[in-house]
Amino acid sequence: MGIPDEQIYPYATAAAAKTVAKHQEPQNLVFYSGWFCPFAQRAWISLEERGIPYQYNEINPYKKEPHFLAINPKGLVPAVEYKGKALYESLILCEFFEDAFPNYKPNLLPLDPVDRALARIWLDHITKTFIPSIHRLLQVQEASKQAEALQDLYQSIRKLTDNIKGPYFFGEKFSLVDIAVAPWIVRDWVVEEHRGYKRIDASPKWKEYAELVEKRDSVVNTSSLREHQIEIYGRYLRDEAQSEAAKAIRAGRVIP
Amino acid sequence: MGIPDEQIYPYATAAAAKTVAKHQEPQNLVFYSGWFCPFAQRAWISLEERGIPYQYNEINPYKKEPHFLAINPKGLVPAVEYKGKALYESLILCEFFEDAFPNYKPNLLPLDPVDRALARIWLDHITKTFIPSIHRLLQVQEASKQAEALQDLYQSIRKLTDNIKGPYFFGEKFSLVDIAVAPWIVRDWVVEEHRGYKRIDASPKWKEYAELVEKRDSVVNTSSLREHQIEIYGRYLRDEAQSEAAKAIRAGRVIP
Repeated sequence: MGIPDEQIYPYATAAAAKTVAKHQEPQNLVFYSGWFCPFAQRAWISLEERGIPYQYNEINPYKKEPHFLAINPKGLVPAVEYKGKALYESLILCEFFEDAFPNYKPNLLPLDPVDRALARIWLDHITKTFIPSIHRLLQVQEASKQAEALQDLYQSIRKLTDNIKGPYFFGEKFSLVDIAVAPWIVRDWVVEEHRGYKRIDASPKWKEYAELVEKRDSVVNTSSLREHQIEIYGRYLRDEAQSEAAKAIRAGRVIP
Repeated sequence: MGIPDEQIYPYATAAAAKTVAKHQEPQNLVFYSGWFCPFAQRAWISLEERGIPYQYNEINPYKKEPHFLAINPKGLVPAVEYKGKALYESLILCEFFEDAFPNYKPNLLPLDPVDRALARIWLDHITKTFIPSIHRLLQVQEASKQAEALQDLYQSIRKLTDNIKGPYFFGEKFSLVDIAVAPWIVRDWVVEEHRGYKRIDASPKWKEYAELVEKRDSVVNTSSLREHQIEIYGRYLRDEAQSEAAKAIRAGRVIP
């Protein structure tokens, strides 16, 4: 018997299962994903938004199968195989889709160089403050540390919402900045039920924004049932998870 | 009297002083830099490599002057002001120079989408493993933790050197991957003298590569005298530095 995370529910469910079913034919772009993984969902939303042809391939990254390790030496989803090359890292994949498929619209990074840089500044903010604080909030066990992580999370969210043009980050156009937080918005019921998080406590603007983002077609169509997710999140909430992100948070290191 | 880091030597010296002197005229692009800051040097090398017109503006980021905070709310160098907008984060600035000045050659990110993604994967590797381990090595005081940080650094370097085509990362073309490590190569005498680091102990290939990178014109022309740097690094070596990077490493957090 392997580590507990190996026994996750094996397939996407709900609307995500239908999206998987539509993407079984071989394509030049093979997308290695895990239905439960918020990082993988970022890349998946980008593919769906732009209608890029891809073949979906479900991977359990906890199993570290040799075939998958040969593609991505870090053994993490998401990853893609394209023209014999392997690429990985969620936001790098999203940028790769912009660079490699310029004719598939809409573009998700602004074309203006200053706005592109601003998008990357906010992606960096999400990577450095939003993601680590929400993962700490999930995993830490002491009440005082949970309270600290919750305040860090709210502070990170408020800095972001202060810069949302509305309805989406860059105005009417849905962009990579929205995609970067969307997977954690659809999963925030976990910290709401178990850690006292409330969208409204971050800010009313965040609540409104989160309700809009979670209804977006590309987000709905890449989301699975909560009942299988809670099996996974239960391990995070008890700090028993064995994902690379979980191990990094436990060790006080950067999420790989 | 302010915190010790406020009293750093105020100006660039050696070849860097000549480069500063050549970039005093007003330009559309104002570059806010600190002569001692390795992150600022990344952006500076990119500007020099591509011959982009810029006005150099020396900032002491420890002083948090209101004028500078208005430009970059994080109060960190490097930053740029361009067409009334403020941008910051070293690698984001380097990518911005690529996007905003496409006619200034050479490009420092490959144009092929797969190679661009690979460049970003290695930049991410440098951000997540090389930089935190070299900063931990500088700051941690216990011998066992220094030994651990040194091994982490060597491991990070070996992963990188296994992928160097030679002489530079992508072959004959100097790129952003080389620029991302160059400022720490020209400063590695600090960990060599005080922490037992040796280039050859990382790998012979790294030694050869580092000797090439540190001789590059753009690297030399943005480097100052060691004698002023050691004042700053002394504070890191005694774990007394007050930079944001130093505070983050001390707290076991992500470098902002």
